[in-house]
Amino acid sequence: MKAIILLSGGLDSAVAAAWAKRKWGRGLYGDCLALCFDYGQRHRKEITFSKRLAEYFGWYWNLLIIKIPAQSALTGLSEDVNQIVRGLPASFVPGRNLIFLSYAASVAYNYGATSIVGGWNFLDYSGYPDCRPGFLKSMEVTLNYALGVSPTISISSPLINLYKKEIILKGQELKVPFDLTWSCYEGGDKPCGVCGSCKFRAKGFEEIGIKDPLLEV
Amino acid sequence: MKAIILLSGGLDSAVAAAWAKRKWGRGLYGDCLALCFDYGQRHRKEITFSKRLAEYFGWYWNLLIIKIPAQSALTGLSEDVNQIVRGLPASFVPGRNLIFLSYAASVAYNYGATSIVGGWNFLDYSGYPDCRPGFLKSMEVTLNYALGVSPTISISSPLINLYKKEIILKGQELKVPFDLTWSCYEGGDKPCGVCGSCKFRAKGFEEIGIKDPLLEV
Repeated sequence: MKAIILLSGGLDSAVAAAWAKRKWGRGLYGDCLALCFDYGQRHRKEITFSKRLAEYFGWYWNLLIIKIPAQSALTGLSEDVNQIVRGLPASFVPGRNLIFLSYAASVAYNYGATSIVGGWNFLDYSGYPDCRPGFLKSMEVTLNYALGVSPTISISSPLINLYKKEIILKGQELKVPFDLTWSCYEGGDKPCGVCGSCKFRAKGFEEIGIKDPLLEV
Repeated sequence: MKAIILLSGGLDSAVAAAWAKRKWGRGLYGDCLALCFDYGQRHRKEITFSKRLAEYFGWYWNLLIIKIPAQSALTGLSEDVNQIVRGLPASFVPGRNLIFLSYAASVAYNYGATSIVGGWNFLDYSGYPDCRPGFLKSMEVTLNYALGVSPTISISSPLINLYKKEIILKGQELKVPFDLTWSCYEGGDKPCGVCGSCKFRAKGFEEIGIKDPLLEV
């Protein structure tokens, strides 16, 4: 049983990775490959965190360097990632998860993986359409049509129905090193505390009543 | 009304492009963008043909340079593209159309296009799973989930139910310059005549009883 783990370096992907580690990483045939994308994101800093997390989990780490055609404040330099464009935060990267999962499917084919795991969730989030269950379910069907493999490849989204607070609690249970995760879209020395990603993360830690170890470093 | 045309430079994509030109290219709001991929294909030569075709149609031409993770004889140098691997010709590039259409969706979002057109067909073909109607229909649903746009984006495959002979007849009707199309996987000076792509092309011309102008040059 092999799996491809989409490991951005953010909190959600780290918790999903720890879930995969418990599920597959210890068995005789446990074999996970961490996949990370450099897509010109403003917070390219997260890539370093992804690499450290993969080392922590003891997995191979693959970095794919790509360019996403559609414009987004997250891949631009000067726009405000928090402004609303076409009804969504400007941090939305149109086609991102579609492209990521298409590459992941191709990697899975090569690697013989039958599962692709990611930290998507849609309750405490910014409303991106490509983080919703309907998209993931449809993508799973589509990539199997495209590859025609047997056994089929599944998309696992263990956090899909969790609030940020619950994701952090699950992370605690799975002993996720939260100090090795990066969420802030700005990618500065310290989290900005203002962007949507910082806000959801802070809300989660506040609701549990613990401190974010990243802020203590 | 804007459309993205996947223009590989092959015969099928050229006929699909001519179909799109007639449908949208002449109206007041007709606006097509030709999209071509350099994915390390052995017959990278087709890219030059794609560019010439885009000039012929009078369209902007975008080239995206990518790497497809899964191994394929078509992106390798030494393998035989005609041998059978996992029940398919070794020229199958796992994830290719999934990745191409994901990029096309992202370009369509940016460009304001509501249609993506390609030359997929599945009767005289090599059995690639990502050229079948089921995949294209599923991909159309998926990309709309991913982007959340209104109006939705459609995938148009005007050749999907045609045999190669019928595709060539349609191309004749639409005055497609067949000498500006390249099909051979080997990408040498002249078509090899041996690969699957050459064979299907030759069969089509033979059945109509006309000469392939590419072979007369």
